Amino acid sequence: MAVVTAPKQDRSRATRQRLLEAAVACLAEHGWAGSTVSVVAERAGVSRGAAQHHFPTREDLFTAAVEYVAEERSSALRALPVQSRAAVVEALVDLYTGPLFRAALHLWVAASNAPHEEQLRARVTELEARVGRETHRIAVELLGADESLPGVRETVQGLLDMARGLGLANLLTDDAARRGRVVAQWGRLLEEALG
Amino acid sequence: MAVVTAPKQDRSRATRQRLLEAAVACLAEHGWAGSTVSVVAERAGVSRGAAQHHFPTREDLFTAAVEYVAEERSSALRALPVQSRAAVVEALVDLYTGPLFRAALHLWVAASNAPHEEQLRARVTELEARVGRETHRIAVELLGADESLPGVRETVQGLLDMARGLGLANLLTDDAARRGRVVAQWGRLLEEALG
Repeated sequence: MAVVTAPKQDRSRATRQRLLEAAVACLAEHGWAGSTVSVVAERAGVSRGAAQHHFPTREDLFTAAVEYVAEERSSALRALPVQSRAAVVEALVDLYTGPLFRAALHLWVAASNAPHEEQLRARVTELEARVGRETHRIAVELLGADESLPGVRETVQGLLDMARGLGLANLLTDDAARRGRVVAQWGRLLEEALG
Repeated sequence: MAVVTAPKQDRSRATRQRLLEAAVACLAEHGWAGSTVSVVAERAGVSRGAAQHHFPTREDLFTAAVEYVAEERSSALRALPVQSRAAVVEALVDLYTGPLFRAALHLWVAASNAPHEEQLRARVTELEARVGRETHRIAVELLGADESLPGVRETVQGLLDMARGLGLANLLTDDAARRGRVVAQWGRLLEEALG
């Protein structure tokens, strides 16, 4: 049996992955209003029926997609060799400037549109908390920060809030030059604060 | 003549103001997709014709609205009595947690939806630059920061990026308690950095 089902499971997993990646790209490019299961299925080269088998609702597909890509980014960050704090700060800020951040931002903003999006809101609130905790954990680990010291936890949180704000500042224009200078300076402040 | 036209001008200015305030509230509550000149006119108790006389297009109305409310907030900030840096940091962060930030965020995200929103994008990019420069100027002034010293400009910019990120973190849930702790800690770090 294993001989027969294994390739089938592999195909199913590959289809799922293609759908998740297409969903993030679609959300980043077209926003929530332009993102449906059908559009993503077509982009991924998957039949609409197969897409709906994997993700019965639009909310299922797009929250799973943002979570999947966030997990991929987290794994990549964790796999980095040990680096200087300055390099870690740069890598953390980079999390907020690519298509994943744009996709997540569209989802967050759509979910905030209560009362039109109650169902999406509940899902995204939970997802945000989960991804936020995980990102904080990774930041503490990579920065070698000792959270038993007073203020350290808030110092790291503020850094991630700044990174999120930098992502927003990069939404309409290429903010890379200014961002580089801000990140260098806040990297120095962080180095002093963490000791 | 002045006796006749002055009240008319006053009425016109009052109508304009009501439209601008209603537009920000509408954008904050319903997002870009749910915000049209008609909806705002009704909310403001103004005829659609009068609304279109003041703001010929949807882009005119909503960019003017965000700019108007941003200017109101800036004037209010400038009028504050001289305060401790900690209090200034709190006041700056507060700029990003109310309806104005929500409205601006909806506008920014809608404008990022190229190629569907080319016209809006150009307007909002210009508006963002203008409001950003003004907020930076106020922050430098209120914090008593000396930008001729190396790193000070970037320290203040990073603070405003952090404030923007904190605004985003407050979108779906009430983040006030965590935000208070982060702001207190970075207020201390900033105090040291600015000397």
